[in-house]
Amino acid sequence: MPLAALMALPVLAAGGPECSENMSIRKVPFALMGTGGVGAALLDAIVQSRMLHEQRYGVRLEAVALCDSSGVVKAAKGGVLSDETITAIVQHKKGGGRLKDTPVGEAIAQPEGQGTADFLLEIAKQCGEEQPGCIVVDCTATEATVPALLHATSEGRGMRAVTANKKPVSGPLGDFTQLVLSPGASARFRYEATVGAGLPVIAALQRVVAADDSVSRISGSFSGTLGYVMSGLQEGQPFSEVVAKAKELGYTEPDPRDDLGGVDVARKALILARTLGMKLEMSDVTVEPLFPSELAALSVPDFMAKLPTLDSSFADKVAAASAESKVLRYAASIKPPTPNSPGSLTVGLLAVPASSPLGTLTGSDNLVEIYTGWYSSTPLVLRGAGAGTGTTAAGVLSDIIELAFTM
Amino acid sequence: MPLAALMALPVLAAGGPECSENMSIRKVPFALMGTGGVGAALLDAIVQSRMLHEQRYGVRLEAVALCDSSGVVKAAKGGVLSDETITAIVQHKKGGGRLKDTPVGEAIAQPEGQGTADFLLEIAKQCGEEQPGCIVVDCTATEATVPALLHATSEGRGMRAVTANKKPVSGPLGDFTQLVLSPGASARFRYEATVGAGLPVIAALQRVVAADDSVSRISGSFSGTLGYVMSGLQEGQPFSEVVAKAKELGYTEPDPRDDLGGVDVARKALILARTLGMKLEMSDVTVEPLFPSELAALSVPDFMAKLPTLDSSFADKVAAASAESKVLRYAASIKPPTPNSPGSLTVGLLAVPASSPLGTLTGSDNLVEIYTGWYSSTPLVLRGAGAGTGTTAAGVLSDIIELAFTM
Repeated sequence: MPLAALMALPVLAAGGPECSENMSIRKVPFALMGTGGVGAALLDAIVQSRMLHEQRYGVRLEAVALCDSSGVVKAAKGGVLSDETITAIVQHKKGGGRLKDTPVGEAIAQPEGQGTADFLLEIAKQCGEEQPGCIVVDCTATEATVPALLHATSEGRGMRAVTANKKPVSGPLGDFTQLVLSPGASARFRYEATVGAGLPVIAALQRVVAADDSVSRISGSFSGTLGYVMSGLQEGQPFSEVVAKAKELGYTEPDPRDDLGGVDVARKALILARTLGMKLEMSDVTVEPLFPSELAALSVPDFMAKLPTLDSSFADKVAAASAESKVLRYAASIKPPTPNSPGSLTVGLLAVPASSPLGTLTGSDNLVEIYTGWYSSTPLVLRGAGAGTGTTAAGVLSDIIELAFTM
Repeated sequence: MPLAALMALPVLAAGGPECSENMSIRKVPFALMGTGGVGAALLDAIVQSRMLHEQRYGVRLEAVALCDSSGVVKAAKGGVLSDETITAIVQHKKGGGRLKDTPVGEAIAQPEGQGTADFLLEIAKQCGEEQPGCIVVDCTATEATVPALLHATSEGRGMRAVTANKKPVSGPLGDFTQLVLSPGASARFRYEATVGAGLPVIAALQRVVAADDSVSRISGSFSGTLGYVMSGLQEGQPFSEVVAKAKELGYTEPDPRDDLGGVDVARKALILARTLGMKLEMSDVTVEPLFPSELAALSVPDFMAKLPTLDSSFADKVAAASAESKVLRYAASIKPPTPNSPGSLTVGLLAVPASSPLGTLTGSDNLVEIYTGWYSSTPLVLRGAGAGTGTTAAGVLSDIIELAFTM
């Protein structure tokens, strides 16, 4: 039945500016590190969501610094970058330009001789001093942001941080402990987009932890590429053909071993395990690559040429699983320690019941099953697209809005 | 591989009290309205989680008032109820006692002649004045809490509120607007457990809204009872037999029409639609009950006796769906308005592809599919147990911990 009374999100009759005068708007300054795909998508989304953010949250996100590996465009002390400036910079970056050659405003190039980590730390410090409550947003894929993030999330500094970058949360355990596990850290740091892009896996897990609902097991498929490969195998396609097709379609990295090796999945699994409080380093994760070690050193064309030698072995594994009404998934399996078991964290082939949530998964979606005290007979399940710049930027933006109300 | 390095959540060597001296603990006062199943489970969980909450969040949740329909046990001005008092009260309630006859401390009975709504409002006001930042927690199933919740979530009052009670968020739209949609409300109010118990459906939807990712459709199965009935129908059981079995197992209300009528599902659907910003009242929801109106006025035994007259019609519907590779679900369907369509909100039988997430659902789990700009070809899906006092209390507790860091 069409409903005449139905309306979308409330829209002010007179547009935007009036609204700022009548409401108290919470101004939330942020410094963005990384203005590539995800960073640019985030800036686009922030500019386009101004009306929603003011009306629903009474929040205005204000860019005070934008950084890439060449330098930074920073607002004058106490000022902000205008939406026109942001938009021009996004266009410049999308066209392949670097920030130090910005077409608008003035850029500060990263000084010769200063490392990127020191440079970014310096920017985080300046932004924190000039803009109380500034949020450092990490949309890079480098470890060089770690000192800046640690600075921004130190207690009593009045700053906060959000990251879409797996490196800071899958590096040394000490960094993770400060960022996530120290008391009050949940008011200062968010990292949702590091696992499953915008899929609220971390948010769901943090809620389970906050309710002290003990987790007995997490199983998850966190690679769209490997999900695609497993779906193909299940349909009876030879391993070599599925991998070749995935490469052709651009689903894999240029060297498919970067996906087939499982390291990216292992990083995500480590982040989830640490979120539960498991004190692990990357070296503690048992990773089973989808190719034997003797193929590791070959050139990409030689590697691709050798793939058919693996077909029969994979076909056998699929058939063996099928005989037990199971299907193969490339999955992470996390078991926290109990009084009777030391726990484990493994990444590799897992035969799961065909009727289980993981078993019914097809295509490139991510899926995670969380078994807890309250979700024991059937798990808490999240499923959906777990990659893509837009989805990732959406995850970052939700994190920023959540932090807008904390401290 | 067993990992020697594996450890559970960090546990202080010396136990609890020392920790309070070395860390700054954020004290978070709360007043609980409703000490029945969910409320008692919540109090149990709070007492049992003290170490986790101090160590991971630096938070201590302090009970300042516990209410039921008979009265209130309140701490002295500025004081808190001890864990011993809380535990004794929970035992007293579990044994069927009423708060005004509390075995510990002193209870204030609800004054004769004062309505429950006024009484609870008075308590919320007192707690707010005596305990800055007090969180009012609603674990009742009555509308009488609404004035107290509206008081606690008014801007500038420095209070907050959490509810597991659907009434305040599925009543008049004006109340929902103040509680959820007014600017800054997300820092003052949480209502996760009103839909899908502890399943983070509202949290996921709020993240989608915050990222301004436009929702095109939500489909969801929000009744474990009706999920069980639909699973039975799909397996070929007659409608009358499945309903009789569900009643026998205690899955339905004493009068199964309370479930089969769909009103509870409609309330949850309304809450989700409003969360998206759709301005709807309960009367705008189109609800299709699973029984014809001529059976509405019968006694329960007469109603049960008449059920076989519906069997062939349900069998036909299941067969018709099956012919199209679809299965029947009792589902809510929410379509926000677009420039070309006024949108809709319906609750009733839905034939969905057997291979879709909703189609693969079996048993009593809840499941919701959210289609958005970023989740367009395949939806964002959440699935899991959507009822139970423990799961519901877990959802409330997570909400409280989240609010501990806002304002």
